[in-house]
Amino acid sequence: MLVETQTPRPVQTLPTYADVEAAAARIASYVHRTPVVTSASLDRAAGTSLFFKCENLQRVGAFKMRGAANAVWSLTDDEARRGVVTHSSGNHGAAVARAATQRGIPSWVVMPDNAPKAKRRAVEEMGATVVACEPTLAAREATAARLLAETGALLLHPYADPRVIAGQGTAARELLEEVPDVDLVVTPVGGGGLLAGTAIATAALAPHAEIWGAEPSGADDARRSLAAGRVVPVDSPRTVADGLRATIGELPLAILLAHGARIAAVDDAATLAAMRLFWERTKLVVEPSAAVPIAALLARAISADGRRVGVIVSGGNLDLPDALFALS
Amino acid sequence: MLVETQTPRPVQTLPTYADVEAAAARIASYVHRTPVVTSASLDRAAGTSLFFKCENLQRVGAFKMRGAANAVWSLTDDEARRGVVTHSSGNHGAAVARAATQRGIPSWVVMPDNAPKAKRRAVEEMGATVVACEPTLAAREATAARLLAETGALLLHPYADPRVIAGQGTAARELLEEVPDVDLVVTPVGGGGLLAGTAIATAALAPHAEIWGAEPSGADDARRSLAAGRVVPVDSPRTVADGLRATIGELPLAILLAHGARIAAVDDAATLAAMRLFWERTKLVVEPSAAVPIAALLARAISADGRRVGVIVSGGNLDLPDALFALS
Repeated sequence: MLVETQTPRPVQTLPTYADVEAAAARIASYVHRTPVVTSASLDRAAGTSLFFKCENLQRVGAFKMRGAANAVWSLTDDEARRGVVTHSSGNHGAAVARAATQRGIPSWVVMPDNAPKAKRRAVEEMGATVVACEPTLAAREATAARLLAETGALLLHPYADPRVIAGQGTAARELLEEVPDVDLVVTPVGGGGLLAGTAIATAALAPHAEIWGAEPSGADDARRSLAAGRVVPVDSPRTVADGLRATIGELPLAILLAHGARIAAVDDAATLAAMRLFWERTKLVVEPSAAVPIAALLARAISADGRRVGVIVSGGNLDLPDALFALS
Repeated sequence: MLVETQTPRPVQTLPTYADVEAAAARIASYVHRTPVVTSASLDRAAGTSLFFKCENLQRVGAFKMRGAANAVWSLTDDEARRGVVTHSSGNHGAAVARAATQRGIPSWVVMPDNAPKAKRRAVEEMGATVVACEPTLAAREATAARLLAETGALLLHPYADPRVIAGQGTAARELLEEVPDVDLVVTPVGGGGLLAGTAIATAALAPHAEIWGAEPSGADDARRSLAAGRVVPVDSPRTVADGLRATIGELPLAILLAHGARIAAVDDAATLAAMRLFWERTKLVVEPSAAVPIAALLARAISADGRRVGVIVSGGNLDLPDALFALS
């Protein structure tokens, strides 16, 4: 649904697994069914059996395509022709831009001016108008509010929207169809949309599995919020995981509380080491945010010893260093 | 078979598709059946339909596992217990080491001292003894000869061995089983083992398809050799494609001549740009050597306009820059 404020009040009826199934049908022709990969050497390093759902191989390079496609294609024609505004550090923006372009409607994406250049370029290539702002929640909201007033478009929130959450849940649905007997499912957690959708799908398809989110210790608002039972923002999140700086939304938090989700936090050094190991062993490019759950498993911040773990690998978009591709 | 000299004389009976089929059966439990991936944006950039056979996702990160496994498991028990010696810039060495360790026999790998550190580490991790030498053919051969004398082991040549060539041909066999209707098949060409094996498999399974090799313009011995009908070495090969610095062998050359293979050459700047584009669009890590055919297609050095092209993506092993994984 379309929310006209940063966090919807009062919290709506929580989305259900039926919403995830409806989303899967709605977006089937707009998303890839991504592969699940394994790595014997990462299994040895983590002491577990890991099943990586490769959303870095998703369209626009991230799971965000799922939620954005579900939200954009859920609009009525009257709603759709107004166009959509969103704010995003990158992947959600590219996904909304792509979905809007496919539906033939305009889109505007508010991006912090410290977003990776590769992500900004992707949003523009997908057909959106990018509007830069300072990298604060206040600047994002003010810029989005101005755009909404100027354009008459609808706000499509990156994670506090039940249609976005239901769409994100389709990744776990596919993973659990392919690997039904997991003991844990782990995703990164920023605003909480992916983890909330994953919790809904996992509770339906693998009800005995634990649901874990992993976040940077410099942006551990999800851990604090689950402990407090209410949103506890981190004022100045500090992490290389540019996709995980957002504060968890009230709607995702309510879903995580309802499903007993747990949160692990790891520092950026562990995340970057895990990212390197993942690149080297799987030959798959993942962005720092996607490496956070892998780091949490390698560091035993999530105890999964000898168990079967489904991991949503959230995305693969980052600025590759020019030096890597330069003639020496 | 085991060759006791750099290039076997006289050239033996050329390996046939029956040898490729026998190799496929022999190595089935030691190699991955790698995926074939496509990319709409790379298709647009190349003006073709590209089918990438991802041998960067092969065990040890390169197609070399196929030929090494076939050669090592073709040895009689009496031969095998002597152990094996090879020389390699990296991937073949790691593959021989792995196959030897799996068979329970010792291995020694002569490596140039400018090989990527990641490749040297991989060879050691697989259980071989690494012996460094200067990066010249003469030093490689002298060091290998000394090791053969000292150890009594057998030489397993990286590309001038029919069993290695037959093993390499199993990659194209899998590709053509999955995508039978290609118009061209393209591989990188260094010593020529992959291209020769690919030629044999393609002639059997897609007899109308053109067979192309792509090599760096700074190491274009294959182009010169095919034109001359005999091995024409490049004295000081200069290229970032560390896997393609070897001089084509007589046996691979004979096979390429028999199958009418053609060669395209591209400069390193084009290779590095293609490597970057491939990483960005597919999220797959490929090494410079593997990007050479992609560069040749993007540059139209191979004319494939509107046609269907099978590309063997040869490997994904390279030194990743520390800066990419460092806290800033």
